[in-house]
Amino acid sequence: MANAMATPVDRDTAIQRMLEALRAARKPILQANQIDVARAEAKGMAAPLLKRLTLTKASLDSMERRLQAISEQSDPVGRMRLDQTMPSGLHVQQVTTPLGVIGMIYESRPNVTTDAAGVCIRSGNAVILRGGSEAIESNRAILAALHSGLEASPLPPDSIQLLDQPGHKVVRQFLAMHTFVDALVPRGGPRLIEEVETHSRIPIIRHYDGICHLYIAEDADEAMAVALTVNSKCQRPEVCNALETLLIDAGSAKRLLPPIVHALSAQRVELRGCPITRSICPALLPATEEDWATEYLDATLSIRVVHGLHEAVAHIEAYGSHHTDGIVTNTNALAQDFVQQVDSASVLVNASTRLSGGEAYGLGGVIGISTGKLHARGPVAAEHLTTYKWIAYGKGHLRD
Amino acid sequence: MANAMATPVDRDTAIQRMLEALRAARKPILQANQIDVARAEAKGMAAPLLKRLTLTKASLDSMERRLQAISEQSDPVGRMRLDQTMPSGLHVQQVTTPLGVIGMIYESRPNVTTDAAGVCIRSGNAVILRGGSEAIESNRAILAALHSGLEASPLPPDSIQLLDQPGHKVVRQFLAMHTFVDALVPRGGPRLIEEVETHSRIPIIRHYDGICHLYIAEDADEAMAVALTVNSKCQRPEVCNALETLLIDAGSAKRLLPPIVHALSAQRVELRGCPITRSICPALLPATEEDWATEYLDATLSIRVVHGLHEAVAHIEAYGSHHTDGIVTNTNALAQDFVQQVDSASVLVNASTRLSGGEAYGLGGVIGISTGKLHARGPVAAEHLTTYKWIAYGKGHLRD
Repeated sequence: MANAMATPVDRDTAIQRMLEALRAARKPILQANQIDVARAEAKGMAAPLLKRLTLTKASLDSMERRLQAISEQSDPVGRMRLDQTMPSGLHVQQVTTPLGVIGMIYESRPNVTTDAAGVCIRSGNAVILRGGSEAIESNRAILAALHSGLEASPLPPDSIQLLDQPGHKVVRQFLAMHTFVDALVPRGGPRLIEEVETHSRIPIIRHYDGICHLYIAEDADEAMAVALTVNSKCQRPEVCNALETLLIDAGSAKRLLPPIVHALSAQRVELRGCPITRSICPALLPATEEDWATEYLDATLSIRVVHGLHEAVAHIEAYGSHHTDGIVTNTNALAQDFVQQVDSASVLVNASTRLSGGEAYGLGGVIGISTGKLHARGPVAAEHLTTYKWIAYGKGHLRD
Repeated sequence: MANAMATPVDRDTAIQRMLEALRAARKPILQANQIDVARAEAKGMAAPLLKRLTLTKASLDSMERRLQAISEQSDPVGRMRLDQTMPSGLHVQQVTTPLGVIGMIYESRPNVTTDAAGVCIRSGNAVILRGGSEAIESNRAILAALHSGLEASPLPPDSIQLLDQPGHKVVRQFLAMHTFVDALVPRGGPRLIEEVETHSRIPIIRHYDGICHLYIAEDADEAMAVALTVNSKCQRPEVCNALETLLIDAGSAKRLLPPIVHALSAQRVELRGCPITRSICPALLPATEEDWATEYLDATLSIRVVHGLHEAVAHIEAYGSHHTDGIVTNTNALAQDFVQQVDSASVLVNASTRLSGGEAYGLGGVIGISTGKLHARGPVAAEHLTTYKWIAYGKGHLRD
C-alpha cells in the first residue's frame, strides 16, 4: 500500500539514496564477496561460474552506473495508455500501475541484486530476492547498503527483502505464497524454471536459457561475418545472449569457414562441427546431437552447414530457445524472411547477438531477458514490471 | 507455421466464412443444444446455470453479431509498437506477433465457443477449446460449422480444435502439454483456476471470479444510486461483472437504503444485510462472513454499511476478487481517491459494473475478463492474444 501511494519523486529519491549508500559500502561489499569467492573456490566451482560470482572495482562501477541510469529513467507508473470517450459518453482510461510484489530467484551473479532492486523500485513494486547460496555474503552486504539507503528515503526499507535462509525448504515455502506474490522472475537454467513452474501458482516472467544462433547467408561479407561471429561468441561467453551455434550456408561455407575458424581459434574457442564443416576444416572436433541443444556459457561453439534459409530456420526452431537469433546477409528480402520466420524474442540482422538487451535497445536497466511470450518478451525493464487498470467515468451509465 | 505466415486479409476471409457457415447451421446447432439442455434438466441443473447453457434464436443472433464485429476489428498482428534508430545507429523495432497456440478451458456457455474461436483467429493464433461437458453437443455442432467455414478459407481447419473426449483424464493430459501450448485461458470458478494453476506449466491468462462491489458515497444522488445498483445486480446476474456486494456509506444509509431495497425487492432480489443495514431495513436476512466472499451469480445481494472511503476500500481489498468495483459519488476528489486505492482490473465511477467489458470499452469481441495482473488485465480481446518480437537492424554492429 505504501508503495502504491508513492510518487515518482519518492522513487527518484529512494534510488538516489540506494546509490549513495552502495557507493559508501564498496569496502564491506568487496570483503563479503571475497568470502563467497573463497568458499566457491574451495568447493571447486568451474571457472566461468567463478567469474560470474566475482565482484571487482570495475563491476561495482558498472552496478552503480546501471543504478544511476535506472534513477534517470522515466517513471513507468501512472502512464495513460488509453484515454478516450466512447460514443456512449463513457470516458474510458487505461493507466499503468505497479504489479505489487515481485519475487526474483536467480543464481550466482551478485550484480543482479542491485539491478533487480533498482528496476523493481523504479516500477513502484516491492521485491523479494532469492539469490544463489554461493553469493549469500555478497548479497547480504549489498542488501545492507540498499536498506540504509531506503531508510533515508520516503519508501519503507522492506520494499526490498532478501530471502537469505539457507536450504531448499524456504524456497518451496516462498513458491507457495501465490496469495502474496504477484509475479515471479526466475533467472537461471532449465532446472530452476522447471522447479518454479512445477511448484508454484505464482504467475511467472520466464527467463530460460539462451541457445543463440547466427546464420551466415550465402552472400555475407567476409569481414562482417568474422567480426560478428567473434563478438557474439567471445565478448562475454558466460551470458545468455552469447552465441552457441553458428549456422553457415553451404553456398558460403568454403569461402567463409576458414577465416571464421581462424579468428575463433585465435580467441581459443573450442569448435565442434557437423560433417560438412569438418570436411572443410578437418581440425575441428565432431559436434553431436547434444551440442545443438547445449548452452555452453563458455568458450565453445558448435558449427553447422545448412542449405538455405529454410534449413537454417528449421534448425533454430528445433534446437533454439527462442531467445536471440541473427542473420548476416546483404540481401534485404532474405533478412525479411528470416525476421518473419524465426519465432524468437530478438531477431537481429547484421548485428552481434550480444546486442540483444536493454542497453542496446534503449531500455536502460533490466531485470533480465524473458524467453516467455506472455507479458514481457526479451529485455525486461521497469516498464515491463507494471500492469494497468481500466478506469471508466460515467454519468449514471447503465447497460441496456 | 501456416497461421504465422497468414495475412490480415486471410484472417478477414476466414472469419467471414466462419460466420456464413454459422448462419447456415442454426438449425443443427439449436437441435444439438436442445439435447444438452434436456440432459442437464434431467440431472437437475440449477436455473441460472441452465439459463447460461440454453441457446435461443436471440443468443445465436448475438453470437453472429459478435463474430461480425470481430471480423471488422482491426488486425492486431504485425503492428509496429516501437520503431527507432538508437544513437549507435542500430535500428530497433518491436512488432506484434501471434502467441501461437491458445488453450481455452471454460464452462457451460456455448456462446463462448464462437467468441473464443473468432478472437483467436483474429489474432493469428490456433486455439484448442475445452468446453463444459454439459455443452458438448452444442459445441460439437458449432465446431462443425466453424470447420466448414475454415475449409472454404485460406486457413487450415485445424486452427480451431475441440477437445471433446469425455472425462477428466484428457484435461490432465492437455494441461501437461506445455511444450506445445503457449497460453492457457481458464474461464470459470476458483476450482478450475486452482486445478489449472496446480497441474500445468503452461502460462495462464487468469479468469477468476467476479466479486464486484458498488460503494455508494455519502453525497450520492438517490436516483443514480438506485438505478446503478439495480442495473449492476439485475441486468444479468449470472455473469462475472454483476454486482455481488453493495457498500453504502453510513452518512447516506438512512436516506438511500430504503429506496434501494425497495427497488431491488421489486426485482425479486434476495437481500442479506450487515447489522446496521438491518437496523434500517429490518426485513432483510442477516449477511454472514461467508456472504462477503461469495460470488452468487444469482438474484442475491449482500449489503454492508461502511464508515467512509477507507473502510469501503478495506472491505473491497479483503473480500473482492480485483475484477470490477465502482463508486457512486458527485465529489471528484473522492472518486479519484477510490480509483487510485482500489487495486482492481476495472474501477468505475458513476457507471454500472455491467459496463466493465470489451463492448463498453470499445474493444469489440473478447475471450473473457482477466483478473490476473500479468499480460492482460480486464477484458481480453484479440490484441491481448499477441506477443511481440524485437527486431534490430545493424551494419555489422558489435558490442564493446
